[in-house]
Amino acid sequence: MTQLLIQRFSVPLEYPVVFTRDIFAAENNALADAISRREPQRRQRCLCVIEARVAELWPDLSARFSDYVRAHSGTLEQAAQTLIIPGAEECKNDPEALGKLHAYFEAARMDRHSTVIIIGGGGLQDLVGYAAATTHRGVRAVRVPTTVLSQADSGVGVKNGVNAFGKKNFLGTFAAPFAVIVDPSFLRTLPQRDAVAGMAEAIKVALIKDPAFFAWMRAQASALAGVEDEAVSYLVRRCAELHLTHIATAGDPFEFGSARPLDFGHWSAHKLETMTHHRLSHGEAVAIGIGIDTRYCVEAGLLSESDAESILSLIEQLGLSLWDSALEREGPTGLEVLHGLEEFREHLGGELTVTLLDGIGQGREVHALDLGLLKKSLSYLRTRARRPKSAVHPSTSP
Amino acid sequence: MTQLLIQRFSVPLEYPVVFTRDIFAAENNALADAISRREPQRRQRCLCVIEARVAELWPDLSARFSDYVRAHSGTLEQAAQTLIIPGAEECKNDPEALGKLHAYFEAARMDRHSTVIIIGGGGLQDLVGYAAATTHRGVRAVRVPTTVLSQADSGVGVKNGVNAFGKKNFLGTFAAPFAVIVDPSFLRTLPQRDAVAGMAEAIKVALIKDPAFFAWMRAQASALAGVEDEAVSYLVRRCAELHLTHIATAGDPFEFGSARPLDFGHWSAHKLETMTHHRLSHGEAVAIGIGIDTRYCVEAGLLSESDAESILSLIEQLGLSLWDSALEREGPTGLEVLHGLEEFREHLGGELTVTLLDGIGQGREVHALDLGLLKKSLSYLRTRARRPKSAVHPSTSP
Repeated sequence: MTQLLIQRFSVPLEYPVVFTRDIFAAENNALADAISRREPQRRQRCLCVIEARVAELWPDLSARFSDYVRAHSGTLEQAAQTLIIPGAEECKNDPEALGKLHAYFEAARMDRHSTVIIIGGGGLQDLVGYAAATTHRGVRAVRVPTTVLSQADSGVGVKNGVNAFGKKNFLGTFAAPFAVIVDPSFLRTLPQRDAVAGMAEAIKVALIKDPAFFAWMRAQASALAGVEDEAVSYLVRRCAELHLTHIATAGDPFEFGSARPLDFGHWSAHKLETMTHHRLSHGEAVAIGIGIDTRYCVEAGLLSESDAESILSLIEQLGLSLWDSALEREGPTGLEVLHGLEEFREHLGGELTVTLLDGIGQGREVHALDLGLLKKSLSYLRTRARRPKSAVHPSTSP
Repeated sequence: MTQLLIQRFSVPLEYPVVFTRDIFAAENNALADAISRREPQRRQRCLCVIEARVAELWPDLSARFSDYVRAHSGTLEQAAQTLIIPGAEECKNDPEALGKLHAYFEAARMDRHSTVIIIGGGGLQDLVGYAAATTHRGVRAVRVPTTVLSQADSGVGVKNGVNAFGKKNFLGTFAAPFAVIVDPSFLRTLPQRDAVAGMAEAIKVALIKDPAFFAWMRAQASALAGVEDEAVSYLVRRCAELHLTHIATAGDPFEFGSARPLDFGHWSAHKLETMTHHRLSHGEAVAIGIGIDTRYCVEAGLLSESDAESILSLIEQLGLSLWDSALEREGPTGLEVLHGLEEFREHLGGELTVTLLDGIGQGREVHALDLGLLKKSLSYLRTRARRPKSAVHPSTSP
C-alpha cells in the first residue's frame, strides 16, 4: 500500500569572484558587468549597504557609489539611498537589525532580480546576506568584502547568518552570492590588528590544503605582519581560491554531512568568541584555536614537534596571541572552553567531526578528542605564553 | 589588473515522497525509514509540530506520535514535547510565530541532523519549514501535509515562507524537505469546502501539463465534489507527481529565472487572497484566477470557447466559485485586482512572465497582458456568476 517516489535534482549555482582595484572608478566595469551579466539589455535596480566603520574610513564611498551608478546608467539604476549600519559581531547580535533590513528592501521594492551590494567585513556580509537571502526567497547579493578575513574566506563563500540565543550563527542559510568583488584597496585602512587577525584563516586553509602556501606565509611573515600590500593581496587571493575550490569540489557545498574540513581550529574558536563576548575577534580566536589543535596533534602523536613549532611560531610572528585568559575559566562541569566541542557538534549536527593534521598541508578527520590530551595542550600553550618574548623568536628559525 | 574566477558547482538534492496510510500505525515503517535513511545505525532525535485544527480533529495524534517513536525506539528518539500551533494564513501573518519556533528548536537542542516533523496544511508547512530551514542553516524537515492542497502541491515542493509588510511570502527560502509523507487518511476529516478548494491546483497543473488528467477530472467531477476517498487519493497522487516532475526537470528548481509556468492563474489569486484578508482561501482564489486567465485566453484568441467552457464548468461542478465581489473593487488607479500583475512580477523579479493556455494541457508564456481584454474577461465572469444556477449545468455537457 505504501508507494515511494524519490525526488532527485541538482541546483546549479554559478558566481564570478572578481579581484580588482578601485571598484568605483568610473572606468572600472567590474561591478556593472557582474550585476548585469544575466540580462545585459535591461537596467538593473540596485542599492548599497555599507558598514559604518568602512563609511567612516572612506567618507566619500556612498557618493562614489551613486556616481558610479550614474556613470553606468545604461545598466544600473539606484533603487534607494545607501544604508550605513554597524557591522562586525555587533550587528549579528542585534535582534532588530534583520527586520530593519527587510523593511528597507521592501520600501525599495527589491525583487528577486534586484541587487543588494554589501560593502563591509564578514559580520555585515553575514547579516545583510541573510536578509537578502530571505527576502522574496532570495534577492541578488553582491558581496564587496573589506577585511582580510572576509576577502580571503567567508566573503567569497555561500554562508550567511546571525547570532541568536547566545549561539553564533544559530540562524542563517546557505545561499550563493550573485557575485563577489574583492578590492584590496579597502585593506589599506584596516587597523593592523584586524588585518593580521584575518590571516589566521589563511594559515588554517594552508595547513589543511596547501603546504606550499604555508611555506610562502612563513617566508613572508614579516611582510604580512607589516600588512604590506603585495603580500596581503597575494594571501587574500590564494586563500580565496583554496576556499572556493573546496566549496566546489569537496562534494558537500551546503554541508548536509557531518564533516567540515575547512573548520580546523574552529571548535574552540567559536566558543572563545562567545565566552569573551567578542573581545576576541573571529580571527584572533581562530589563531588560538589553531594553536590548541596543533599542540593536540603533537600530544596525540600525529604531528612532529618541529612542524608544530613552525605553525605556532608563524602565528606569533604575525603578532597573534596563542593564549587568552578565558581558556582558564571553569564552568559547572570543568573547563568552559571544552563545551565548545559539543556546541560545534550541535551546530553541524550528527557525529562530532573535527579536522586535525597529519602533517603540514594534510588534514585528517577524527570523531573524538581525548580530554586529557586537550588539557595537556592547553597547559603547554599557557606555559608558552608566559615565556619572555625574547625567547620566542630564536626558537622559530627552522 | 582585474582578474576573474568563476565559481561553479551544483547542490545535489534528494528526498523521498511516500504515499501511505495510517502514518502512526506501529507496524508502518514509512516515517521511521524516511527519517533514519542516511544513518540507519544511530537514533534520530525528532520532534513534531501539529496544526491546531488537525490536533482537534485527531485528538490522539500527539499521543500516537509519541507511541510511534517509542515503538521505533531503535531508530527514533523524541527531542521535545509536541508543539500544537495555529496553521493556515493566520500563522504566516503572525509576526511572532517564527521566533517562537526558533526558540522551541533551540530549547530542544535541535541540530542539523535532527528532524522536525510538520503535520498540517500548506500554511503551517510554509511557516515551520521556514523556521527549520533557517535554524543552524537548515535542520531536517519531514512534511506530513494534511490537506488536498498541500498533499497535491505545495507540501511536496521546495518552498517555504511567511507573509510580511502585507505581502504574501515576502520572507522565505527554497529548501528541500528531508522527506514528505502523504497520508490521505487526513483528508477524511477535512471540511468539504477546503478539500474541494485544494483541487484548484490540480486543475491548474492538468491544464498546463496533462490533458489526460484533466479529462479524468471531468469524468470524476461528481466523485471529486463529494470528496470520495478513491478519487481524491488519485488526484493528490497524480498532482504531486506532476509537481515533482516539474521541479526536477524544468531546469530552474530554485527559480533564478523569470518564468514560473506552474503558476497559471496565480497573479490574480495572490492578490485576491490579500484583498479579501484570506476570506478566500488559496485554492478558492486560484479557482477564480484560473477562470480569469482561461477567459482571457478566449478573448485573446488562444483558446476555443468549448475548451474554456470545459474548464469553467469543471470548476463550477466542483462547487467552486468563479467570481468574488472583491474583483469589482476600485483602487486609486483602477481595478485593484489588476495591481496583482505588478506584485506578481515583483515577487519573482525581472520581466513579467504569465502562463496562459494554447489549449488544454498546453501552457505558453507571455510577458504582457492586455488590460482591455482582462476587463472583458472579468465582465464575462461577473455575468456568468449572475446566471441562475440551473442554467449552469446543461451548458457543461460537452
